[in-house]
Amino acid sequence: MDSNSSGMIPLHQNSSRNRLDHKRETICILGTGDFGRSLGMRMLKSGYPVVFGSRYPKDSTLLPSGAQVFHHADALKKSKIIFLAVHRENYDFVPALSDLLDGKVLVDVSNNLRMNQYPESNAQYLSQLVPKANVVKGFNTVSAWALQSGNLDASSQVFVCGDDNKSKQLVMDVARSIGLTPLDQGSLLAAEELEDYPLQLFPMWRLPLNITAGLTVFFFLYYVVIKVIYPYVKKNADDTYRMMISIPNNVFPIVSLILLGLVYLPGVIAAFIQLYRGTKYKRFPDWLDEWMLCRKQLGLVSFAYGFLHVFYSLVKPLSYAYYWKQIQYTVSEVKKNTTSEMERVWAWRGDLFYALGILGFAVFCLLGITSLPSVSNTMNWREFRFVQSKLGHVTLLLCTAHAAVLGWNKFLTPTRYKWGLPPGYILSMVIPCIVLVLKLILITPCVDRMVTRIRQGWEKKEKGSGNVNI
Amino acid sequence: MDSNSSGMIPLHQNSSRNRLDHKRETICILGTGDFGRSLGMRMLKSGYPVVFGSRYPKDSTLLPSGAQVFHHADALKKSKIIFLAVHRENYDFVPALSDLLDGKVLVDVSNNLRMNQYPESNAQYLSQLVPKANVVKGFNTVSAWALQSGNLDASSQVFVCGDDNKSKQLVMDVARSIGLTPLDQGSLLAAEELEDYPLQLFPMWRLPLNITAGLTVFFFLYYVVIKVIYPYVKKNADDTYRMMISIPNNVFPIVSLILLGLVYLPGVIAAFIQLYRGTKYKRFPDWLDEWMLCRKQLGLVSFAYGFLHVFYSLVKPLSYAYYWKQIQYTVSEVKKNTTSEMERVWAWRGDLFYALGILGFAVFCLLGITSLPSVSNTMNWREFRFVQSKLGHVTLLLCTAHAAVLGWNKFLTPTRYKWGLPPGYILSMVIPCIVLVLKLILITPCVDRMVTRIRQGWEKKEKGSGNVNI
Amino acid sequence: MDSNSSGMIPLHQNSSRNRLDHKRETICILGTGDFGRSLGMRMLKSGYPVVFGSRYPKDSTLLPSGAQVFHHADALKKSKIIFLAVHRENYDFVPALSDLLDGKVLVDVSNNLRMNQYPESNAQYLSQLVPKANVVKGFNTVSAWALQSGNLDASSQVFVCGDDNKSKQLVMDVARSIGLTPLDQGSLLAAEELEDYPLQLFPMWRLPLNITAGLTVFFFLYYVVIKVIYPYVKKNADDTYRMMISIPNNVFPIVSLILLGLVYLPGVIAAFIQLYRGTKYKRFPDWLDEWMLCRKQLGLVSFAYGFLHVFYSLVKPLSYAYYWKQIQYTVSEVKKNTTSEMERVWAWRGDLFYALGILGFAVFCLLGITSLPSVSNTMNWREFRFVQSKLGHVTLLLCTAHAAVLGWNKFLTPTRYKWGLPPGYILSMVIPCIVLVLKLILITPCVDRMVTRIRQGWEKKEKGSGNVNI
Repeated sequence: MDSNSSGMIPLHQNSSRNRLDHKRETICILGTGDFGRSLGMRMLKSGYPVVFGSRYPKDSTLLPSGAQVFHHADALKKSKIIFLAVHRENYDFVPALSDLLDGKVLVDVSNNLRMNQYPESNAQYLSQLVPKANVVKGFNTVSAWALQSGNLDASSQVFVCGDDNKSKQLVMDVARSIGLTPLDQGSLLAAEELEDYPLQLFPMWRLPLNITAGLTVFFFLYYVVIKVIYPYVKKNADDTYRMMISIPNNVFPIVSLILLGLVYLPGVIAAFIQLYRGTKYKRFPDWLDEWMLCRKQLGLVSFAYGFLHVFYSLVKPLSYAYYWKQIQYTVSEVKKNTTSEMERVWAWRGDLFYALGILGFAVFCLLGITSLPSVSNTMNWREFRFVQSKLGHVTLLLCTAHAAVLGWNKFLTPTRYKWGLPPGYILSMVIPCIVLVLKLILITPCVDRMVTRIRQGWEKKEKGSGNVNI
Repeated sequence: MDSNSSGMIPLHQNSSRNRLDHKRETICILGTGDFGRSLGMRMLKSGYPVVFGSRYPKDSTLLPSGAQVFHHADALKKSKIIFLAVHRENYDFVPALSDLLDGKVLVDVSNNLRMNQYPESNAQYLSQLVPKANVVKGFNTVSAWALQSGNLDASSQVFVCGDDNKSKQLVMDVARSIGLTPLDQGSLLAAEELEDYPLQLFPMWRLPLNITAGLTVFFFLYYVVIKVIYPYVKKNADDTYRMMISIPNNVFPIVSLILLGLVYLPGVIAAFIQLYRGTKYKRFPDWLDEWMLCRKQLGLVSFAYGFLHVFYSLVKPLSYAYYWKQIQYTVSEVKKNTTSEMERVWAWRGDLFYALGILGFAVFCLLGITSLPSVSNTMNWREFRFVQSKLGHVTLLLCTAHAAVLGWNKFLTPTRYKWGLPPGYILSMVIPCIVLVLKLILITPCVDRMVTRIRQGWEKKEKGSGNVNI
Repeated sequence: MDSNSSGMIPLHQNSSRNRLDHKRETICILGTGDFGRSLGMRMLKSGYPVVFGSRYPKDSTLLPSGAQVFHHADALKKSKIIFLAVHRENYDFVPALSDLLDGKVLVDVSNNLRMNQYPESNAQYLSQLVPKANVVKGFNTVSAWALQSGNLDASSQVFVCGDDNKSKQLVMDVARSIGLTPLDQGSLLAAEELEDYPLQLFPMWRLPLNITAGLTVFFFLYYVVIKVIYPYVKKNADDTYRMMISIPNNVFPIVSLILLGLVYLPGVIAAFIQLYRGTKYKRFPDWLDEWMLCRKQLGLVSFAYGFLHVFYSLVKPLSYAYYWKQIQYTVSEVKKNTTSEMERVWAWRGDLFYALGILGFAVFCLLGITSLPSVSNTMNWREFRFVQSKLGHVTLLLCTAHAAVLGWNKFLTPTRYKWGLPPGYILSMVIPCIVLVLKLILITPCVDRMVTRIRQGWEKKEKGSGNVNI
């Protein structure tokens, strides 16, 4: 049934390819599913002749125009590079083609439905099924829709791994030719990681988001006690409306400031560990490493909360409660029939409070913008460190000062402590103040000189001139 | 006149090149115009020897230092890769050089003044003039200024196409060496598209912007009738000042919400079509495809309008009309001489309204940030879909709820319908509500299971085991 | 001491490499410092066998697992590509290895502590020490921490230069294999620039930031005189609190508008120079070139100041002084016991003022977003120019109009000129108005036609048909 269709193909495929060696190599795609067809369409557009291999070549529909379709065996005879675009459950037909695959490049593009679904990666399993073929893992991180539409919004990166270097290079060349960016990920052992990659859902964000969620819930309940339950118990007042704007606008800045403190805390801890050990050549404890790796995410969540705080604050003059209170106050002023003086201290304090907040937010925006991959890519390391460390500590300082000016001398007033609970802004300032004090110690000239020496490779107990290397 | 200048050149250029084969190949540029010179300057910087070909080599000025200049024929003898940097109208000198160009790589870098200016692309026309040369199209998307200044802000991408693969590779290598990112676009047939590319002006934005303009004009006039003409007719009041802030601040959120609905409508329509057909292997109607391809642009325009709405709203307490009304109200309160109670329902409703708006805006900002190419590039498809679909629908829900809380029970008050016209917020909620209801149906477990099966390749009427492919 | 350790190594390393030619080449790293180890770790991950060369191989600790360590001489025998990861002060051991390095690729990854620390670049110095080796400079712009963590946030770009092209290609291939983006920077002469690069701190920002600082200080003092010292002298009023919000909110918009004018001024000057000269083929004066190259930075600083102005303005209704004045005014209104009418002109003017400001800010945001590298990369030159030039001038127009509406007819009121000093908004509008007037002249049809002709290569005094080139 399909032997006649293979009759269309010239016998000396290879020689003809050599003769027209400026033409692209024929690509074979086994599997006529969505991904296989999309891949084929893209390759045809880039000038590759494409042959599909199918169980039922006559029933294969919707194939991209310009492609040919044959039975599996006939299709893969026509090409040195074979893409296997079928699910792992359907690899059973592959071993029968073992001889035809000898020495050829077999690209496993499969994905699974969940992480660690099978004991070994699909690519390694395939490699065991057809040991003679040079199995390369790749393309599984690209979506069929992206290949079809040419719309490579999310990731034009193709991670590739395989044991045979030449085969890998061939596959990477194909990826480059169709407009993708191949990245070599090493041997076939990496296939497991590659197959897990498309199933990940923001793994680096999990810890920061959990911390944020915990802090948010805690401070929300804390403020419900202070601002809703306390007035209800004491004055039988229904202040539940505060849960919409007023309480969140306490929770967001508090959590934001704590998170910002947590961004810069591991850095100062690390510096003190290095000072204590007198060397940078010892690994940090695992918890510190993990913490340092999620600083960017912590910072971005802190920024998001700061952003919410800004808009929750700016909307305040529009809120009914604010409007109502202002009118009540004005009415009472009118009735007092005296001319009240403007309190210069209040004007100073209020304006200082807002100015610090806005400046802190602005520098925080700058940090956020420079953490965009395309922006940070244009900076060298010195510039990146300047922005993320220097400007970062300035942000922390401004935001902590913003909170301190809010507090002013209120912490001395016992009536502010409802049921003995300290106001939230005091709690929010604990970690930032620790960070700032430790940082202050670190930037004193004598300590700074020591840290710099250690970071340039100096060690406390030298064994000789061994510290001369970079 | 120019034979003596060619006397400077060693006869055995090729052999000398082979001896020093770690040196870069000499590049010949025909044409000493702005683009040719800029290209030459860039290549010299990257270590390529450059010779220019000119009609009047002695009169050629402003050439980059280090380059040599000869008559056309002498110049192209010195190189295997020739860049033709002259306008199409001046290709007439090229056929005379046909023999010298035999087998060489001739790069057409020309652009036209308007789209489809000539029946065939410049590169194809050139290829007909000198059939012996291997014509490659490329570099036309890069600007002379960018090459000169090294400031590749807009696009360091070089689209390259040509019929001869080896020639194309050589040109792509040159592009890579001078710091550009070459992208293979296939055969010389693609030259037409490449020559149109630099003349395009946001083609994907045309439809979304037209829709936006239409909606904006309609709702602006609609509100001029309700807020300016109606009070003028009924009370002879001059409320034209409302056209500055108040009316735009009704138009922006309404259009923004409608556009946001239009972003997610095609997705649910597509899901229902797939459900009805019982397969994903049939093309969607063209209008739906086109609609789906401009969702990103629709979303960004919606975001821009939402952004304007936010700032138009925040500026409200600063406006004279707001200030004046507040004072009038306070004065009337004073005169009433009664103590008014705070309305808890109003406080609730107002605060809920603002909270939903701010949260909607914040998630919308998140969507905007993740649609930046460099950010979406760091996400895998699962993450990208999570953000753009899950968070997108959350944004739509928040913004629709924001509008609904604004409306509250006003739609029951007949006096709100000036001349029988419904308030704009009701009109704005039609499409978002349709999307949300349809989406609600789609995420019920039984329907969701069906859609998932279809999207994984299952078909209603199976022909056998043909649905096993990816 | 170390000869026994070299006994572990098979004698015919090269032949074994040829046999298994799909394996990666062994890489030798001389120096077991932080950078060397990080580089080794990264290479091992990408499948390269790595040998370290050390003075005291037995004492070398913390080396990545999988790497071997030998004495310098033994290590470099095993590889064709040698990375020298020691500081320049310790190059003294290299000349002794000269014969072993004959024809090999020696990569200098060193950095200095300050710019221009030595008369020649480290790489050139190394090249003089071992003239037989093919010295390539590179990898010095990557940080050890980035290599270790795989977190290439700031710059995955590797600038590479060297005199031998093949060696450079080998090094670039290695860079590509370990996930970095190599960029060829030409001959070893470029090493000086490469070694300076990581020491740079925003060189393009220096001039714009200095201009901004100068203007900021000047206008701050100017306003302190008008708003603090003047009332103190005249009325003995303590208005120092104004230095927090009120004065900065005058300084930010004024400086922002002046800077925005400075962004577009060089463009119109350049056009007039071209018009006057009748050609574009003459270099602009150096000061103009320099000015044009920092337009992006000027624009971004202007945007930052505009951003601050927006939030300083929005916070105004929350400030104590505003609140207090509003209440005083209301109380006085109550006492007047008359019904004041709403002033339509004030409503118009105020709303127009805010609307222009918001629209200006919104278009400015658009400009900012499109100047992100990853966004501008998706645009062709026509689109980029449309956004940055057309929309840029629209921004300038909107912001200047915003300032003009603020001024209204105040400039006619002599009491506004405290001590004869004109209000700041008048000073801020000088440059923008010059730009807008000049631009208006340039876009009149007849002038525009002339400029377009010049930019397409036409020259006033033609020598023949020499103007046909691009």
